[in-house]
Amino acid sequence: MSEIKQKSVEVFLDELASRQATPGGGSAAAVMGAQAAALISMVCNLTIGKPKYAEVEEDMQALLKQSEALREQLIAMIKADVDVFDKLMACYGLPKNTDEEKSTRSRQIQSVLKEATIVPLECAKACALSIKLSRIAAEKGNINVISDAGVAVMAGYSGLKSAALNVYINAGSIKDRTFADEKIIELEQLLGGADIETEEIYQLVKEKL
Amino acid sequence: MSEIKQKSVEVFLDELASRQATPGGGSAAAVMGAQAAALISMVCNLTIGKPKYAEVEEDMQALLKQSEALREQLIAMIKADVDVFDKLMACYGLPKNTDEEKSTRSRQIQSVLKEATIVPLECAKACALSIKLSRIAAEKGNINVISDAGVAVMAGYSGLKSAALNVYINAGSIKDRTFADEKIIELEQLLGGADIETEEIYQLVKEKL
Repeated sequence: MSEIKQKSVEVFLDELASRQATPGGGSAAAVMGAQAAALISMVCNLTIGKPKYAEVEEDMQALLKQSEALREQLIAMIKADVDVFDKLMACYGLPKNTDEEKSTRSRQIQSVLKEATIVPLECAKACALSIKLSRIAAEKGNINVISDAGVAVMAGYSGLKSAALNVYINAGSIKDRTFADEKIIELEQLLGGADIETEEIYQLVKEKL
Repeated sequence: MSEIKQKSVEVFLDELASRQATPGGGSAAAVMGAQAAALISMVCNLTIGKPKYAEVEEDMQALLKQSEALREQLIAMIKADVDVFDKLMACYGLPKNTDEEKSTRSRQIQSVLKEATIVPLECAKACALSIKLSRIAAEKGNINVISDAGVAVMAGYSGLKSAALNVYINAGSIKDRTFADEKIIELEQLLGGADIETEEIYQLVKEKL
């Protein structure tokens, strides 16, 4: 089966809508984050090389490197979400007839639940970074495409809040509470202030329109 | 050239990131809205037919019809945004050597600016509706996929706020202020309370996780 990124936008949406468990919200979050990164790159690409923006040329070159690296990461996360979900479902399907089987199954579920917490946490981190990068695009980018920086910040924000839900779900089932609590704290550090930051950047863009 | 919806997710993101003017934030907004609609459908598809959810069967069937119609509309908007932008650019490229040419060019720009305001306004309306439909999915959907209703509301919200930016830009250049102000009022009715509504639905989902 081909990877989601190779499927058409229409087929991706069909599969998202279907009764198949994957792709689901985790992949959608990564796609939103990747749209944020792509739009930041677009603003950079339409600013770089323009004499009017010579003063911010270096900043835009540096921003483009970051946004393109981020886009690559987020595209990889579309698949990572599906893979870890499938792995978790496979664990839930393990036999549980004997005590030994039960114990093996439980150990494996617990191990994969940790992965299934880290995957959306990494997506949340990448989306949170896209919010920060959107600010640079909004502050320094070509005024003619500044609205794209505003769309970027919204896409990054919704990607962050969406990925967060998957962190909460999976962390909630982890028995190793030290691990789980640590991940929740990391997540809440990303979420803290994201609302205000997103609104600030959005308003900055709106004022420039 | 094939339509965006027929391109792979990866190619769509490449084109979004590129120095081409389209696709840009307007298409990204429609994709976010379409993801919202698709995820609502997913929640419906994974609730319908389950004995445990027999009580909400009819509600879910009705919701699915609405979310699928909405998804179709939003997918069409990915292309509509590109088309109207190209049309506007073509108008700006019209000759302006004589007074007659100037006047024709200006008239045509003004006419297309109205279309270019209506297209994102329709996208904003569809996204606003996706927020309302997300609430039903969050309230009545299968608890095992309730996080997808949370991702849906975030995607719809970011689609709404993103489309709004394009309404503001294009309405701002319209000389017929009665028309423009009417569209801005319509938009602001959609935006008013969307923040609070989105947060309410998101919290409802979070509490159910």
